[in-house]
Amino acid sequence: MKVLKERIIKDGKIREGNVLKVDAFLNHQLDIELFEQMGEEFKRRFEGKKITKILTIEASGIAIACIAARYFKVPVVFAKKTQTKNIAGDVYTSKVESFTHGKVYDIIVSKEFLRPEDHVLIIDDFLANGKALLGLTKLVQDAGATVVGAGIAIEKGFQDGGKLIRESGIQLESLAIIDAMSVEEGITFRK
Amino acid sequence: MKVLKERIIKDGKIREGNVLKVDAFLNHQLDIELFEQMGEEFKRRFEGKKITKILTIEASGIAIACIAARYFKVPVVFAKKTQTKNIAGDVYTSKVESFTHGKVYDIIVSKEFLRPEDHVLIIDDFLANGKALLGLTKLVQDAGATVVGAGIAIEKGFQDGGKLIRESGIQLESLAIIDAMSVEEGITFRK
Repeated sequence: MKVLKERIIKDGKIREGNVLKVDAFLNHQLDIELFEQMGEEFKRRFEGKKITKILTIEASGIAIACIAARYFKVPVVFAKKTQTKNIAGDVYTSKVESFTHGKVYDIIVSKEFLRPEDHVLIIDDFLANGKALLGLTKLVQDAGATVVGAGIAIEKGFQDGGKLIRESGIQLESLAIIDAMSVEEGITFRK
Repeated sequence: MKVLKERIIKDGKIREGNVLKVDAFLNHQLDIELFEQMGEEFKRRFEGKKITKILTIEASGIAIACIAARYFKVPVVFAKKTQTKNIAGDVYTSKVESFTHGKVYDIIVSKEFLRPEDHVLIIDDFLANGKALLGLTKLVQDAGATVVGAGIAIEKGFQDGGKLIRESGIQLESLAIIDAMSVEEGITFRK
């Protein structure tokens, strides 16, 4: 997606350790107009597919998922990263290892909000090692619901998450795929 | 706001300890159509005010803030609850005590995204003891920016957050104010 790639070039900052900082527009300050264009693009890529719900994960996935949901006209459910006293005990749960934070955490979704009849589109901001996406996929499968596909803003194509997900047969649509990046040579997108 | 109050009556669940569970539509599963109506209502209540940015706090504030931002045509910034390695050291910070989770945490916003010239509308899902809202207000003030007001979905009017905020001179607009609630007698809204 051209407008997203251009924005990554303009405002993204590459940091040591394969960290791409896009907090000026994607996951700290949020450019809602850009998110609307991304939502429209997700709608185009999953056109004709039956989707009853969008699933994402807190925190930065929520913004993209909510704006995208306007185009699909379905509710959003976000998986939570820790058990709070507002969540009933009756939850689906999965373990996820975070690339960014370097730790393992539990993600949970209340069983009320994922039903066997649901057709679920998973949306998130980043795909790197794929652990969050696989964890979300497991929650949907545990519910007996259908994973329709996954929509990602930025995929780090040099890590193996995208390959894992595509090989598992899930329709994965990443709006920008980075094949290489370094402080010295900048960012190379996949054609 | 009538449609929100009706929804709270229909789908809200009262739990011991003054906990109101609204995770069917507000903070776990998210009803985006309802959020659009709430966004329009915030726009109406702050009509004519100069607003350059919406500030909220992860996680459940993000969804409401992002949909509202469509009506104000401004970016959203969300305060983060823990320091991650993707955030630069240059942040404004404040301590917040959570009513729901019963613990104290730090909230941070990168200095890049709150500037002295910003006119900030704060949006959040709940107002109870006001600690989160006061913490967000402090971040804006530390940046030398202007707090235009605060838009809240559900205010627990029987706790003192709303009173504190209104007495501080901030325009506080809560779409539903609960004056009393109990498992036995249900919910009483403020007229």
